[in-house]
Amino acid sequence: MFDIKAKDMRGRVGVLKTNHGDVKTPALMPVIHPRKQAIDVKKYGADIVITNAYLIYKDDELKQKALDKGLHELINFSGPVMTDSGSFQLSVYGDIDISNKEVIEFQDLIGSDIGTSLDIPTAPFVDREKAENDLKITIERAKEAVKIKKENNIKMLLNSVVQGSTFPDLRQDCATQLASLDADLYPIGAVVPLMESYHYKDLVDVVMNSIMYLPDDVPRHLMGAGHPMVFALAVAMGCDLFDSAAYILYAEDDRLLSTRGTFKLENLQEMPCSCEVCSKYTPDDLRAMPKKQRRDLIAQHNLYVSFAELRLIRQAIYEGSLMELVEQRCRAHPALLDAVRQLANYNEDFEKYDPRSKKSAFFYTGSESLKRPEVLRHHQKLKEMSKKRDLIVLPPSRKPYSKFISGKLGEFHVFGSEQEIDLDNTDFMVLDVPFGLIPLEIDEVYPLSQNDSPKIKDVDSLEYLSNFLSDFIKNYEQILIHSKIIKELNIGLYNKSVNSDEIRYKKDDIKKIRAIADYQFGNGAGDALFKGNINVEKSKKTGKIRHVYDGKTLIVNMRASDSFLVLSKEGARRLHESCPYPKNRIVVNKDSEPFALDGKSVFSKFVVECDENIRARDEVLIVNEEDKLLAYGKSLLSACEINEFMSGQAIKTRKGMKK
Amino acid sequence: MFDIKAKDMRGRVGVLKTNHGDVKTPALMPVIHPRKQAIDVKKYGADIVITNAYLIYKDDELKQKALDKGLHELINFSGPVMTDSGSFQLSVYGDIDISNKEVIEFQDLIGSDIGTSLDIPTAPFVDREKAENDLKITIERAKEAVKIKKENNIKMLLNSVVQGSTFPDLRQDCATQLASLDADLYPIGAVVPLMESYHYKDLVDVVMNSIMYLPDDVPRHLMGAGHPMVFALAVAMGCDLFDSAAYILYAEDDRLLSTRGTFKLENLQEMPCSCEVCSKYTPDDLRAMPKKQRRDLIAQHNLYVSFAELRLIRQAIYEGSLMELVEQRCRAHPALLDAVRQLANYNEDFEKYDPRSKKSAFFYTGSESLKRPEVLRHHQKLKEMSKKRDLIVLPPSRKPYSKFISGKLGEFHVFGSEQEIDLDNTDFMVLDVPFGLIPLEIDEVYPLSQNDSPKIKDVDSLEYLSNFLSDFIKNYEQILIHSKIIKELNIGLYNKSVNSDEIRYKKDDIKKIRAIADYQFGNGAGDALFKGNINVEKSKKTGKIRHVYDGKTLIVNMRASDSFLVLSKEGARRLHESCPYPKNRIVVNKDSEPFALDGKSVFSKFVVECDENIRARDEVLIVNEEDKLLAYGKSLLSACEINEFMSGQAIKTRKGMKK
Repeated sequence: MFDIKAKDMRGRVGVLKTNHGDVKTPALMPVIHPRKQAIDVKKYGADIVITNAYLIYKDDELKQKALDKGLHELINFSGPVMTDSGSFQLSVYGDIDISNKEVIEFQDLIGSDIGTSLDIPTAPFVDREKAENDLKITIERAKEAVKIKKENNIKMLLNSVVQGSTFPDLRQDCATQLASLDADLYPIGAVVPLMESYHYKDLVDVVMNSIMYLPDDVPRHLMGAGHPMVFALAVAMGCDLFDSAAYILYAEDDRLLSTRGTFKLENLQEMPCSCEVCSKYTPDDLRAMPKKQRRDLIAQHNLYVSFAELRLIRQAIYEGSLMELVEQRCRAHPALLDAVRQLANYNEDFEKYDPRSKKSAFFYTGSESLKRPEVLRHHQKLKEMSKKRDLIVLPPSRKPYSKFISGKLGEFHVFGSEQEIDLDNTDFMVLDVPFGLIPLEIDEVYPLSQNDSPKIKDVDSLEYLSNFLSDFIKNYEQILIHSKIIKELNIGLYNKSVNSDEIRYKKDDIKKIRAIADYQFGNGAGDALFKGNINVEKSKKTGKIRHVYDGKTLIVNMRASDSFLVLSKEGARRLHESCPYPKNRIVVNKDSEPFALDGKSVFSKFVVECDENIRARDEVLIVNEEDKLLAYGKSLLSACEINEFMSGQAIKTRKGMKK
Repeated sequence: MFDIKAKDMRGRVGVLKTNHGDVKTPALMPVIHPRKQAIDVKKYGADIVITNAYLIYKDDELKQKALDKGLHELINFSGPVMTDSGSFQLSVYGDIDISNKEVIEFQDLIGSDIGTSLDIPTAPFVDREKAENDLKITIERAKEAVKIKKENNIKMLLNSVVQGSTFPDLRQDCATQLASLDADLYPIGAVVPLMESYHYKDLVDVVMNSIMYLPDDVPRHLMGAGHPMVFALAVAMGCDLFDSAAYILYAEDDRLLSTRGTFKLENLQEMPCSCEVCSKYTPDDLRAMPKKQRRDLIAQHNLYVSFAELRLIRQAIYEGSLMELVEQRCRAHPALLDAVRQLANYNEDFEKYDPRSKKSAFFYTGSESLKRPEVLRHHQKLKEMSKKRDLIVLPPSRKPYSKFISGKLGEFHVFGSEQEIDLDNTDFMVLDVPFGLIPLEIDEVYPLSQNDSPKIKDVDSLEYLSNFLSDFIKNYEQILIHSKIIKELNIGLYNKSVNSDEIRYKKDDIKKIRAIADYQFGNGAGDALFKGNINVEKSKKTGKIRHVYDGKTLIVNMRASDSFLVLSKEGARRLHESCPYPKNRIVVNKDSEPFALDGKSVFSKFVVECDENIRARDEVLIVNEEDKLLAYGKSLLSACEINEFMSGQAIKTRKGMKK
């Protein structure tokens, strides 16, 4: 029903299958008015639309036509159509005269592709009692809807809406209960007032406390979100669907949507985007037009920019630059910047979903970038890393640092116990923004070299470096910090200066590949993989390590783009032998064993267990429940996703052990 | 020849007059190849183009046609055409076989609207001797060109190109010398290598050290800048013209321009913008096309996005949100963020050009916003402000603070000498990002309330507040700081707590209008304006002060949008009487005296002197050389611009003193 094609942060490019065709997500569903629709939204990019089943139900003529000819003919749209149940009307006008059961059955009868139960949209910031009472009804009706669907064998997909106002625990509770229902889609409801009042920080809390408790294999719909200003942020949090009445409502009101906010036509002296409407007309042209013509053109503009933003977001997910887009978009308003800053509170969750390696470099766009999951992940790895006795800390050079650091290293200040330097018992690290300390052996691994930050540092960065350094050096006996760093960070001078020709960084390919293996697969992997008569083959063109052999047997390849190690058959064997179950493993069930052995890719539904530290793009071992090595490959999803998905590929198998 | 219609930072919306029509700036001139032009650039938004006179001169057929039928027919463009002289070819191929004199005369002969002398484009980072020698020739040729133009009475407008490689003093020297030549346009040359290598920080230094020494009434052209990623930044620094071969060169190479960087078609899975091409085709469609068709479509996309960005920039100047746009655009790459950070070094210069009041609110987009000229300006004003004995510092409430601060104020910590509190001898200020301390009496004045910043503060902001506060309180004997601030800024607890019911902020309309007058016109203006039987009339709807009278005589109106005072005739008289020449004054020559007295607007060319502190949107007094008050009005330009412009309005007169 829903497959993931590409991932970044919690965002995903997916495909939602419906009775009227597939929809690529993240997608925007323009709201279609069943009676007075003016714009042919398909022409401007819509693959799926949403309309209101209750409005049709209430209007005898529409109702009859819908029952006779079907919903798709009624609204003249041949693609997938989602229907809302009237809960918005409920929230505005109080009670309505249709039951949950009636509205579900009606939506199915008229041929809706995705129907919605009659949830209660509880406004933000209400008192707790109201939120709890509303929620109880919402959950009951969702349960009833699922029951009706099962009993009547209804094919229509079903929305179960997450409510709970602005109470994080109620959102969690609702999401948890709905998750057990196996609904087909999970809308997140009653967020419009938060967006209208620029409570984007609260929006982050509401969305995250819903999504973290929803299954990963079901699309989530941010209900009523139709302003392109918030799409990137919402997608990064894991939203897959948006709906927009904004395109036409704003147009009625002479307002133009943009990713930077809303423009009132009366304030425009220039048209703000590259769309057909903006390129063809001036604001004066529009102002001189009859209302209806103007409204339709502005609605077209609104659709053009909205669909363009969704294309750009999907492209950013493919590239792995979604957070750069979010951080840029959210500069449009300080309240959106607050939302990005609030994301940092959910960093551990994001880390579980963020792919290990991306096509794009990591760009520092401001102090918010220091809180990105990639940074947290590196710090976790650093913490786990086995450490030498002493530490030498160097200032950044060009990247990769290890390529450009050589010869005399300059002057150092000594911290900790002073003793003779033993270079074999010393870790060499570079101190830099945004990753803090980067061991020179692993500096080519993504994203430790594949990142860029401004040369003029902000105070946040300096304080971050200073704090990280002073905390990390506690792991060592003696620490030599380069004088440039002492100066830049204004570290106290209660230590003496060392300027020794002995302090040099000696490159060592074996140490490097072992360090990378440990960083990638866990401590000890380096020794296990690279034993015997190790020889390293490098690219003649770039000088980078490409293949590592034991004698003539290939152990690993090093991927040029991100310097991660790609296992060979022998490499997989050695890793499997050395690291304990279930580390680095995907465990498949008995049925899929022969396929795995044959090198066929692994589908999520056959996975019975996996190492919880697996992330998308990790190299993994594929084993059976007795831990017999069947194959090895590259993970397409994170551990938590692999565990939840019941369709689609989990692992792109490189080779089965049979062959 | 060049008029300014709207201003923001150093950016301006202007009109450049040529023999083939007016051009609205900032403008992009697509490069037209005289032989193989494929795209009708006018169709995609071009009002002016640039082509290469040297290429035409070297090609016998083109040359003859240009001489016979004229340049405009040759390239089939009826609007203004600028020609380059071949200096680019010079820089690539070494010497060329045409003299400066020949190329100037040839450009005139074929009917170019704007011709260029044969400058020497010196690359960045060359050794000083080369830069100096090249510069000598560039300046000689510019002088020669101006001489030829004058002697032969040539109507063609003339470019004099600023060179000097990356040596700030050479750029300054060149700009200063060229400024004295009265050229018609000043291109800034040889910056392409800086942009290609992402040396945007150096670009800022080169452009600023050129523009700061060029006259304000002449357009500047950032030569070779054709990537929309840099347009906003360059406009904020005062660039008016761009030229683009990029649109077609990138298209040849299957690369798509965007304000976020460049997309290679091979990496695209989705089309990245809202333009006709991106809305109509998929990347796969384009990849499947014949090369020529694909190139033309990509070139169209490139033009669409480039012209859209220029429209958006002009709109941002009208709104006063140019820096918000720059700060957002420059998040596209850390090297661009460095450029924004580098702008802070030229803050005092920007302050001279930035309008006093804008239609848009000031948005904090990151720590860079703390370095904006509006902040510097407020700090200068605070420094000049006359101060009471004691200071009370409050945390921010909703804005305007003075409206929402009342009753008991809470707990304070005492700094300085402890003495009894005398509320009449105490300044009340709020501590907030980005303006530091805001006296409660003037908090409604733009931009002190018309700004927004995130609730979650970054370390830069906290350190800024802390430093600003600890510096500013030195002006006072006793300082009471609210405990919330002590806590947030983690200020040491070497002081005791005060919780007194006496500490209340008492609103006082008279004090308020006096404080605003002092802030706006200088110390003492408040007492001078508001003497006699002062009564204050407020808006019934908003409760804000609208008019201030002495008895029944109107003294000032308070503008609702920015709370600045607008003088009445009596107000102008009182201000004129009390503040010393030339403060708040525009001095016009004898000839224009009767017009000013009649209330006619003041043109720059009649201004003989003015208060150097005047900024666009200031209320000013118009006097003659004997300091007789002739009229009063609103300045449209900054003092430095008024002094330099020889055409266009300087002051929109409100009323002449005759009437």
